[in-house]
Amino acid sequence: MTIITLLTDFGTADSYVAEMKGVLLARAPSVALVDITHQVAPGDIRAAQYLLGRTWQHFPEGTVHLAIVDPGVGTARRALAAEHAGHRFVAPDNGLLSFLPQDGHFVSLPVPASAAATFHGRDVFAPAAARLATGTPLGELGESIADPCYTPLPAPRHDHLTVIGEVIYVDRFGTLVSNIPGDAVQEGARVRVEGSEAGSLRRTFRDVARGALVAFVGSGGTVEIAVRDGSAARMLGVGVGAEVRA
Amino acid sequence: MTIITLLTDFGTADSYVAEMKGVLLARAPSVALVDITHQVAPGDIRAAQYLLGRTWQHFPEGTVHLAIVDPGVGTARRALAAEHAGHRFVAPDNGLLSFLPQDGHFVSLPVPASAAATFHGRDVFAPAAARLATGTPLGELGESIADPCYTPLPAPRHDHLTVIGEVIYVDRFGTLVSNIPGDAVQEGARVRVEGSEAGSLRRTFRDVARGALVAFVGSGGTVEIAVRDGSAARMLGVGVGAEVRA
Amino acid sequence: MTIITLLTDFGTADSYVAEMKGVLLARAPSVALVDITHQVAPGDIRAAQYLLGRTWQHFPEGTVHLAIVDPGVGTARRALAAEHAGHRFVAPDNGLLSFLPQDGHFVSLPVPASAAATFHGRDVFAPAAARLATGTPLGELGESIADPCYTPLPAPRHDHLTVIGEVIYVDRFGTLVSNIPGDAVQEGARVRVEGSEAGSLRRTFRDVARGALVAFVGSGGTVEIAVRDGSAARMLGVGVGAEVRA
Repeated sequence: MTIITLLTDFGTADSYVAEMKGVLLARAPSVALVDITHQVAPGDIRAAQYLLGRTWQHFPEGTVHLAIVDPGVGTARRALAAEHAGHRFVAPDNGLLSFLPQDGHFVSLPVPASAAATFHGRDVFAPAAARLATGTPLGELGESIADPCYTPLPAPRHDHLTVIGEVIYVDRFGTLVSNIPGDAVQEGARVRVEGSEAGSLRRTFRDVARGALVAFVGSGGTVEIAVRDGSAARMLGVGVGAEVRA
Repeated sequence: MTIITLLTDFGTADSYVAEMKGVLLARAPSVALVDITHQVAPGDIRAAQYLLGRTWQHFPEGTVHLAIVDPGVGTARRALAAEHAGHRFVAPDNGLLSFLPQDGHFVSLPVPASAAATFHGRDVFAPAAARLATGTPLGELGESIADPCYTPLPAPRHDHLTVIGEVIYVDRFGTLVSNIPGDAVQEGARVRVEGSEAGSLRRTFRDVARGALVAFVGSGGTVEIAVRDGSAARMLGVGVGAEVRA
Repeated sequence: MTIITLLTDFGTADSYVAEMKGVLLARAPSVALVDITHQVAPGDIRAAQYLLGRTWQHFPEGTVHLAIVDPGVGTARRALAAEHAGHRFVAPDNGLLSFLPQDGHFVSLPVPASAAATFHGRDVFAPAAARLATGTPLGELGESIADPCYTPLPAPRHDHLTVIGEVIYVDRFGTLVSNIPGDAVQEGARVRVEGSEAGSLRRTFRDVARGALVAFVGSGGTVEIAVRDGSAARMLGVGVGAEVRA
């Protein structure tokens, strides 16, 4: 049973996600559908890139990942399908897939004239995902391209002994996720966020008192700053883009 | 594998939807469950009718659609099952299924004395959906009836060259969905919402500047009014029932 | 097809639930995943206990219930798996499973050194659930223990002819769910919440006028207090812990 994951900014209150699922199941009756999330802020391609980039590899090989955060829907932006490490990806060509190697196999999907100009998710991307899930090779879906839009998340830089990165995501708990890999941090280094001191790396948030700031290597492998039983984003008043030093 | 879709106003924070899914899977072990939405505003039968009415036909024939927005639960209102175009529907008799032809096949489901008076979704409707999904013919579920509650969404009217309709749904992006079919609009006609000018029909919201009003034929086939990268509902301060002219 | 249910306080906006689902499907490819809810308030073990405690028995025997509300993640708190009435349960040892008989079969799951200290849901609990779903007997998952953390929901007490209980859950409609079993209430007894009169038990909320308080035996079998077309929690300004007399 092939899995298709779905990630969108459509929310779950309207019928849009369900219409896509209907199209998927009508064309690929035996797939298993798994929602990653539909609560990406409208048009936030960067958050979508972060979320899919850390999630896809937990799924088994053969999975098709359908990701639609598509502020350019209906314009000349291309529609993509791609393959990497045995996984398949379907998304608009707006940088969402920048976590994939640039020199991978990408194809440009044709957009039929009948597609609703505001809903390529249902009329272009879902049919392509269904074809991949039912065994159509990537190369048959469209023309290969060598220049997919590439806008990777920012990388941290080194300044003598300090690593300088930034917050790339804020989760539902108000935890600040940075782009600094845990293994890039010197033993005993102190973590700071926009000048606020979060101490040296701990194992988990229970290692500090309630309401205190704490830094640790999060489940995505990078440095995170949290408040035990609270929200670091709210306490510090910062969000995506805030400077993190370690 | 038969599909059962679910649409309710139960939200997803409580156990209600999961209890229904448990009942469905205990009685019909090999169905695939697909959520349409559970975020219909409590008691908003009209929104449920709109959402299911535009979604069901994207699913394959044989699908069972279970829709519970049921402010009259536990009263004398009837419980319905219906069949149309190879799809089956289970819902309270309160107009939710008014998108189906009135002369279709409807049956009235018996309500066992053991059913919780506040949760027919679990104790009446889900068992009926499971029976349909496992092959019980509609006619065996209850007595046929010829007078299901029928309260269709309002239809637009024509006034010389102008079509006068109204907003029938507002989606998560604040887009105003009207009941005016795209092909009823005269070439070059200008769209107005409660007196505000939205221009003539465009293809998609990227055809206007950021923050501008734009009208187009939406993915449901009717005229929609949106704000690019914004909310038309908020900008215009209008919602369901607002007059739309085109 | 074995079912795995999921209940967490992770929300659905981040990738955490999907990462767990990826791990489950990679290790147990033919399971069916069913969300109970992911909207438990962060760290609210008691709400998780209430929700899972009323939901699990609606699922078929053999189901694995994976429940992660885990403020002590990464500390010395044990990780549990349990079996009862043909169902299996996987959860942190923090009282979440107190609805199970204390003398049941519980095992303590080993925590591999590689597990992310902040995400045992993905690295400890999901792999255990996948093993149970694919046929590994409970006893092979860890050492049996006889002293799982046991913090049951409060029980009502009797004071002459009155039953005195409390609100143990508030649902999305603002309905106050008490711990007083419906069959413990004397015929004709009047229900009071923190001194406010809700009348004697009715069948359903339609038995009173709009905006009026109403008490009935809810779908979980205990006394509930609601407002027809409104919120009892908001009208009375009370929540979990409020005294209920019947």
